[in-house]
This record gives sequence, structure tokens and C-alpha cells, in this order.
Amino acid sequence: MSRSIAVLGGTGPEGFGLARRWVKAGETVIIGSRDAKRAQQAADKIRACVPNAQVSGDENSVACVSADVVVLTVPFEGHAALLKHIKPAIRPGSIVVDATVPLAASVGGRAIRTLGIWQGSAAQEAAELLPNVAVVAAFQNMAADLLNGDGPVECDVIVCSDDASALQSVRGLAAKIPGVRAIDGGKLENARILEQMTALLVGLNIRHKGHSGIRITGLPNEKYKT
Amino acid sequence: MSRSIAVLGGTGPEGFGLARRWVKAGETVIIGSRDAKRAQQAADKIRACVPNAQVSGDENSVACVSADVVVLTVPFEGHAALLKHIKPAIRPGSIVVDATVPLAASVGGRAIRTLGIWQGSAAQEAAELLPNVAVVAAFQNMAADLLNGDGPVECDVIVCSDDASALQSVRGLAAKIPGVRAIDGGKLENARILEQMTALLVGLNIRHKGHSGIRITGLPNEKYKT
Repeated sequence: MSRSIAVLGGTGPEGFGLARRWVKAGETVIIGSRDAKRAQQAADKIRACVPNAQVSGDENSVACVSADVVVLTVPFEGHAALLKHIKPAIRPGSIVVDATVPLAASVGGRAIRTLGIWQGSAAQEAAELLPNVAVVAAFQNMAADLLNGDGPVECDVIVCSDDASALQSVRGLAAKIPGVRAIDGGKLENARILEQMTALLVGLNIRHKGHSGIRITGLPNEKYKT
Repeated sequence: MSRSIAVLGGTGPEGFGLARRWVKAGETVIIGSRDAKRAQQAADKIRACVPNAQVSGDENSVACVSADVVVLTVPFEGHAALLKHIKPAIRPGSIVVDATVPLAASVGGRAIRTLGIWQGSAAQEAAELLPNVAVVAAFQNMAADLLNGDGPVECDVIVCSDDASALQSVRGLAAKIPGVRAIDGGKLENARILEQMTALLVGLNIRHKGHSGIRITGLPNEKYKT
């Protein structure tokens, strides 16, 4: 498949980790940043350690222009502004994946608490700001440290969207990361739960010095072999 | 230890499952119900299949009188009324464990959504109504079907409380259930996340015909061997 994935905020630990994993899996990735030069440096860093890497770097909205999938991995304080900034650049028919978590740390509070979002979640705010795009919520609960390592990432990625086809595409993308099982989590409204779970996991990481993630137990396994 | 555990709402699937598991583990359990006779029938049912069972049944507030630990497993629509009803009966120094989830089904909505609770969560509402008692949030995310089976229950129980000693006691109780790992989830305010996770799991159960639960990955295991 010749799709192209823009990872906005891709110089941060979560975005960089996702970008690197997808490049390793043979995907074509454009790292997006406010600063094109920093984005290119991040792309160089991946190219230096992955043979035949298909990766470049550019300013966030430029990165969107040629992307089929746009992944948002930015701190919540930059979320709405970024969405407005990239809106004209997003191609019709592309998918926007929102991994943003509205941690209270965004407004000087604690990373173990979330802010209340009027629309219900950051992902639903994205859907409101981008009414003609399929918005998918995913990747909120992955430990960036594990994503940036070389081992399998032992966690499930719960994927939520009101667009069934976009949801399946993003399940496929998640499953490209070794160790990950990608689960259909239903409608986009459920993103509020995924986002809050991150605050719980941050608390567990602080309390127990871990890099926590989640696995869902008790599901029929056949369906989730990827 | 000669503690006594009252499971209120213990004739329902979640409460009955917990009661039976604890009786099997050698704990002394009083099943509580609005109807003492139904509570006694539930106790008889456990006694019939567990040798040397220490189990009885009684009306909810009577069940509290001799209990060291009171576990609430009632539908949210009965939660506040039950707390007011049992308040005079709860012994000083006892622990109240709240497994209640404010599913929107309580007011005719869907079980895949939760109601907003002014205090943040059902467990925090309990703490407000019982200011002199150690309230612990736990057991919201266990599949009742697995609890009522005989195999290990493959899930983690995240335990939250502002009372560190009560939290540890309830971790011990959770760990009596085969398969369960009991995790310190921090302050009671985090109960809001545990309660919402249940709505997500209900959705997964409907969508994927499972009996879902969660495991936290990425924590240092030593600490969680129970």
C-alpha cells in the first residue's frame, strides 16, 4: 500500500516512537513539527538506524498536504490551534488519528488528572473542528518509552471512530507495531474513556515506576490475531 | 484473620460472585439484600457447594452491624439510598468498598455510558455520605460471569482510596480471588476512571461477545505478586 502517514508532533517522544515503528514496518512517514528543520532532523535520526527508510520531515501543515493519514501527537495545549492550522491542508478523504490526551498538566495542573472537554474528549473536539474528515481516536495509552525501544510493545490499542472503514485502517496501522493488539472500541464518544485512562496510567507509572499500558482480557482471541 | 465481610447487593451476579469467591477462600461473609430471605437463600446456595462455608444472609443494614468490611455491589439507582440506610449500622473503623458504576442504564440510558457524578464518581459520593468511614473503590471492572465460574478470573483489580491502610486491606481481599492481581491505583478521586472503564468494557462485551476485564502491563512484577 502506498499510503503516506504524517505524524504531527513527531519530534516528541510519543510521535517519534510511532513514526519510527511505522518506518521500520515499511510505511512511508512524514514527520511534522512546527519547525521544519527539527522535523527533518528527526527523520534523519530514523533514517540513520532503519535500512531503506521511507521518511521525511516538514512543517506540520506541509506534512499534511501529501498524507493519507494524519496522526496528532501533540500536547493538549496546542491541540485546537494545530487543528485550525492544518485544516486547509488536509486532503479530502484522509483520516485524522487523534492520540491527544487533555492532561491537566496542559494548564499547569497535574498529569494524573484530565481536563473536562465540552465535546466529551479531545478527539471529539477534533471531529468538531474537522467536520469533513474521518477522525479516529487511538494510541493514547502507549508508553512512549516502550515505543522508542526495540522490543515488542506489550499493550492493546483501543481504536474508536464513527467511521467504520477508518477505524479498521487504523487498527491495521496499530497492528504494525510488534506486540500491539488493536481492538475495535466502538464510537468516537468512547475516546473520553481512553483519554482518562492515560491519566490513570500516568499515576501508575509514577507510583510504581513502570511504563504501563493495558491489555483487555476475556475477548474471543481469534478476532484479535493481527 | 476473623474479619467479616458484608456484601450488599449480594444476591446480584457481581455481589454473589464476589461473596462465593471469598467464602471459598475461607473468609466469613454475610450476604446483604433488601430482602433477608433472598439473602439467606443466596447464602444457602453458596453453602451447598463450598465445604465448611462461613456464610450467612441478612437484610443490608443488619448485615453491616457485624461486618468489618462492607462491599457495595448495587445498581447505581439504589446507591445513595442504600448508603443513607446503612449509615447508622456501619461500625466505626470498618471499611466500605464501593464497586458501584453509575451506568446511564440506571436512568433508562445505555450501559455503555456513564452518568456524571457531581463528586466525581460513585465512590466519592459514598465518601461524602459516609464521612467517618474509609471508602475504597474497587471491583468495578470484573466480569460477573467469570467471577461466578470456577476458573481463575483473568484480570487486575485497581484499588483506590485516600486511606492507605484500607487500600492495602482491600488489595489483600482482591488477591484472594484466583487470577486477580490487585494494584494500588492511588487516591479515591481516580475511581471516576475505574467507573468509566466499566462502560468501555460493557461496550466491548456487546461488540465482541466477551467477558472483558483489564490487565495493566509494564509494571514491575515483584511488587504485584500476591
